[in-house]
Amino acid sequence: MSRITLLTDFGTRDGFIGAVKGAIQTVFPGAVMDDVAHDLPRGDIESGARALQRYWRRWPAGTVHYAVVDPGVGSARRAIAVEAERRFLVAPDNGILSPVFETAVGWRAVEIRTPRFLAPDPSRTFHGRDIFAPAAAWLARGIHRSRLGPKVEDPVRLALPEPRLESGKPAEGEVIGSDRFGNLITNLPASALAESVAVEVEGVRIPVASTYADVEPGEPLALEDSEGRLEVAARDASAEKVLDVGAGARVRVLPA
Amino acid sequence: MSRITLLTDFGTRDGFIGAVKGAIQTVFPGAVMDDVAHDLPRGDIESGARALQRYWRRWPAGTVHYAVVDPGVGSARRAIAVEAERRFLVAPDNGILSPVFETAVGWRAVEIRTPRFLAPDPSRTFHGRDIFAPAAAWLARGIHRSRLGPKVEDPVRLALPEPRLESGKPAEGEVIGSDRFGNLITNLPASALAESVAVEVEGVRIPVASTYADVEPGEPLALEDSEGRLEVAARDASAEKVLDVGAGARVRVLPA
Amino acid sequence: MSRITLLTDFGTRDGFIGAVKGAIQTVFPGAVMDDVAHDLPRGDIESGARALQRYWRRWPAGTVHYAVVDPGVGSARRAIAVEAERRFLVAPDNGILSPVFETAVGWRAVEIRTPRFLAPDPSRTFHGRDIFAPAAAWLARGIHRSRLGPKVEDPVRLALPEPRLESGKPAEGEVIGSDRFGNLITNLPASALAESVAVEVEGVRIPVASTYADVEPGEPLALEDSEGRLEVAARDASAEKVLDVGAGARVRVLPA
Repeated sequence: MSRITLLTDFGTRDGFIGAVKGAIQTVFPGAVMDDVAHDLPRGDIESGARALQRYWRRWPAGTVHYAVVDPGVGSARRAIAVEAERRFLVAPDNGILSPVFETAVGWRAVEIRTPRFLAPDPSRTFHGRDIFAPAAAWLARGIHRSRLGPKVEDPVRLALPEPRLESGKPAEGEVIGSDRFGNLITNLPASALAESVAVEVEGVRIPVASTYADVEPGEPLALEDSEGRLEVAARDASAEKVLDVGAGARVRVLPA
Repeated sequence: MSRITLLTDFGTRDGFIGAVKGAIQTVFPGAVMDDVAHDLPRGDIESGARALQRYWRRWPAGTVHYAVVDPGVGSARRAIAVEAERRFLVAPDNGILSPVFETAVGWRAVEIRTPRFLAPDPSRTFHGRDIFAPAAAWLARGIHRSRLGPKVEDPVRLALPEPRLESGKPAEGEVIGSDRFGNLITNLPASALAESVAVEVEGVRIPVASTYADVEPGEPLALEDSEGRLEVAARDASAEKVLDVGAGARVRVLPA
Repeated sequence: MSRITLLTDFGTRDGFIGAVKGAIQTVFPGAVMDDVAHDLPRGDIESGARALQRYWRRWPAGTVHYAVVDPGVGSARRAIAVEAERRFLVAPDNGILSPVFETAVGWRAVEIRTPRFLAPDPSRTFHGRDIFAPAAAWLARGIHRSRLGPKVEDPVRLALPEPRLESGKPAEGEVIGSDRFGNLITNLPASALAESVAVEVEGVRIPVASTYADVEPGEPLALEDSEGRLEVAARDASAEKVLDVGAGARVRVLPA
């Protein structure tokens, strides 16, 4: 059976998720709904995209991913539904689906706007309930995406900073965010570490290691994260705090 | 199949939800359980009522809503089960179900106290696990509410401040809370905005608009929220912080 | 059908839970997954153990409990699967399963390491996704634990402070943690209160009562918690704050 996963910044104190889930059940009674996360930083599309990247492709074919961080609700931004690698996604067209557009082997997108697949008289402030929830439920019920609305060829993509990866020169990139543990996520592939023994983060030298336990508690290290990227972490501690850096910090892979 | 939704202030760090869900599964193996929110402010019955209002009626007939914010656990306060518009609710009788009593087209309430539908030897401190969970599970299994205990005709209702809505005078009300985004919830119906172009919040003039994108980032606005109430928000920002007001702040709809 | 419960410190902002749940669905499409809590304090194994104690035995036979607080990921610490009282548990071998080893009527443990039951090429930093999730899914599918790997006879157990319980002397113990409500959890059994009317916490005298409502708002009390332990609480308030104490505070049961 199709499942619907849920990622939002709606929080878990106001009942918004109850309204979203009720809207899904109304369209598709019995739909299975799995929470991923509802405490994304408010309106933080980049965080949403990074979270989505961690799991969208790891669910079985047929899964519908609902991913709503929607600071532009009620504006002219489109609502979109995407099919990629036999998974489905519904989201505001604000860049949160960038990981899909950047990494999927083919994708098709449509604008969600066929009235019969939306709530009657949708609100201007809660498309998560009135537009995205019904669309997700209809996709889980098996309708073809094309019935939701016209094709979208040019969805919004986030402009992520590009790392410098030239042979013969040290790879250079930057920190693009952090996770709950204070691990620093970079825009560099872990492959850049292949022949290196250390990196520099804002000028501070940090050893390359295989896993957290390779260094002493509190000490920083650079390693391959679970998505194949270069991560800067600290054992049993927050690298973000230990190094006192955040998004935008420069990362340079030192030659061996 | 019946589903059980869960709203609590039990948090997500102590395992209390695991005990509640286990108690439900013990009575009704295979029951489907959907989380709504567990991070309500501790003991805040008003927040619980506002959250519940957002969703209880939006689920299919037959749904059982478990709503437990229970600062009076172990006192003489009753445990109640309610049937309204073919949905079911179990909760402490402390006002959290006020939205149901205020807005449902008919309701019936009973006190939960038939021992065979409770945990054996219920604890004095965790009725969420020992009383409300089994009662919710039995309702989801389909027993008639009357088997849980005697009728309750006078459940506790929260005394919400009444707005002044007189023809020929500006509508006046107040802020009754806020949500995760810092949007201010008022006790005024959005219909009060019909012929107005601005409101005053504690003397500060704020324009009426249709949606967040109608004003500049950081600017406040008054609009209809997704529940049909007058909301005071700020684009991409927290109105609560921008205006530095909270519950009790006076709101006046200015004549056009 | 078997269910899988989930307890972690992965938080609800990064998408890690989406990756874990996707990995479970990949091995066992249609597996039912129930969240318990994902906001455990980061790397806090003791908190994880206390949370688990609240629910592991309260679910029906056959349930699989996934409990991953794993500061030692990537080190030599083992991954283990346990069968106890017809429930199953998967976790790092770091003490988080202590409540099972301490209280179960018999248990059997194995090390999880048979490659075909893990993700291919597991990461060094996210065993929650690559080792524990597939193992939980395979157990829920019904494989025998012995297929996961060799027996473990000596799993790690947390060294909890022992209370002094001698007849003829006042029972003495200590605070071992707190919950979201600021209730203080102790290592003393509630039975120690049987003939007492007060306890001392770091020298402050606190009355014994049956439930929160027995004292005035803001006042502290000692009572039996929902797990049969001696708890120190405060009515409608946080005992942790009211008494300004935390883990390690000495608790003495005063003779009547």
